[in-house]
Amino acid sequence: MERIDDLQLKGLKIIQDTELFCFGTDAVLLADFAACRAARRVADLGTGTGILPLLIYGRRPEAQYFGIEIQSALAALARRSMELNGVSGSIQIFEGDIANAADILGGGFDAVVSNPPYEKANDGRARQGESHSIARKELLVNFDTLCKSAAAILKHGGWFYIIHKASRLPELMSTLKEHALEPKLMRLVSSGITAEPKYVLLGAVKGGREHMKLLPPLLLCGEDGGESEELKRIYGREGT
Amino acid sequence: MERIDDLQLKGLKIIQDTELFCFGTDAVLLADFAACRAARRVADLGTGTGILPLLIYGRRPEAQYFGIEIQSALAALARRSMELNGVSGSIQIFEGDIANAADILGGGFDAVVSNPPYEKANDGRARQGESHSIARKELLVNFDTLCKSAAAILKHGGWFYIIHKASRLPELMSTLKEHALEPKLMRLVSSGITAEPKYVLLGAVKGGREHMKLLPPLLLCGEDGGESEELKRIYGREGT
Repeated sequence: MERIDDLQLKGLKIIQDTELFCFGTDAVLLADFAACRAARRVADLGTGTGILPLLIYGRRPEAQYFGIEIQSALAALARRSMELNGVSGSIQIFEGDIANAADILGGGFDAVVSNPPYEKANDGRARQGESHSIARKELLVNFDTLCKSAAAILKHGGWFYIIHKASRLPELMSTLKEHALEPKLMRLVSSGITAEPKYVLLGAVKGGREHMKLLPPLLLCGEDGGESEELKRIYGREGT
Repeated sequence: MERIDDLQLKGLKIIQDTELFCFGTDAVLLADFAACRAARRVADLGTGTGILPLLIYGRRPEAQYFGIEIQSALAALARRSMELNGVSGSIQIFEGDIANAADILGGGFDAVVSNPPYEKANDGRARQGESHSIARKELLVNFDTLCKSAAAILKHGGWFYIIHKASRLPELMSTLKEHALEPKLMRLVSSGITAEPKYVLLGAVKGGREHMKLLPPLLLCGEDGGESEELKRIYGREGT
């Protein structure tokens, strides 16, 4: 079933279909993390409904955004969302394989973002449907291919921003380094201060030199168990 | 100037010399982190005053400990500390180079610990003296050589525990993996919840499969700015 959600950000809306993969908190966290630096040409590898370029556009409307999505139905939804918002001139959606990103988009990107599948192809329990499985498991793209494509389209000194499962951190870091994407910024995400960190936000610089800055952890829940002040800020719920 | 400090742990004492490198909080944190699993044969690569084997022995007296230290004066101090405590039968100190660990100690270790120099040979400001510089900078051993020696003396499935600068995490993880030491346990250390993590405690398993567990952060200060409850526990200051 299709629905239109208000993103609570400059009147932007997004079309989603409950039969297909819908965006989650992780995309919202990544958009906030990635929006911290200026960029003119930004690519989203595996854009799904187009949530990441839409959210980052909301904060930095001066940049050009390009999203690649391999699922036809999701790419079509994303394109309709851009038309609905009147931002098709700023956010272009391409149906295609992340492995072919350089052929589809060319190069010279200042920033690449991705909220990739978290689980290995053979890990985890069965999901609701094919669209969800493709978004959550490495069935059509793995992390090595993602890094290879990100490195191919980034300019020297460009940033690659991802959110991923923290339990895969060693593999993420070594794979990024293999593609000359040096991890330079990291933030762990957990529900609270005494909880085990579950996700990691990573920023890597193409050709960067070794030295990573770590931000304080991003806590999703406050001491009362509800949303933390920072999560409210990220969701634009301040003062509500 | 020599002094004898009480370790507040089963009456154990340590001899230090203020002209030479003295142990810091990082060694105490690592001993706590590394003492969480059973091991019968434990090596400390770059043992300095012997603080790590002494602290771990205090919690697990049933194991055999072996420390390697390249600085003669420190190795001699460490040996005298073991005699002073009457534990020379459980903790043996060898003067030698970490690069030759396999020749000096043989193999079959269940666990290897190390609190290595944090800074690259050409990084950072000048320190007080040669002994401090050797302990703090990679003048005589770098992280790659340390991992090579740890992997050489560990049995399959054995644990390698380190504490290091968090800013070097990507390099640490990729170097560990290059030596088939898979990072399996990680804990960031920071002064408080809103501070940037400064150190990282890492546990890697020789030949382990990919999947890392992350512990909640270790906070050194409480909300009042004094020592956190956990740091008090680690220092054995509960109830004081």
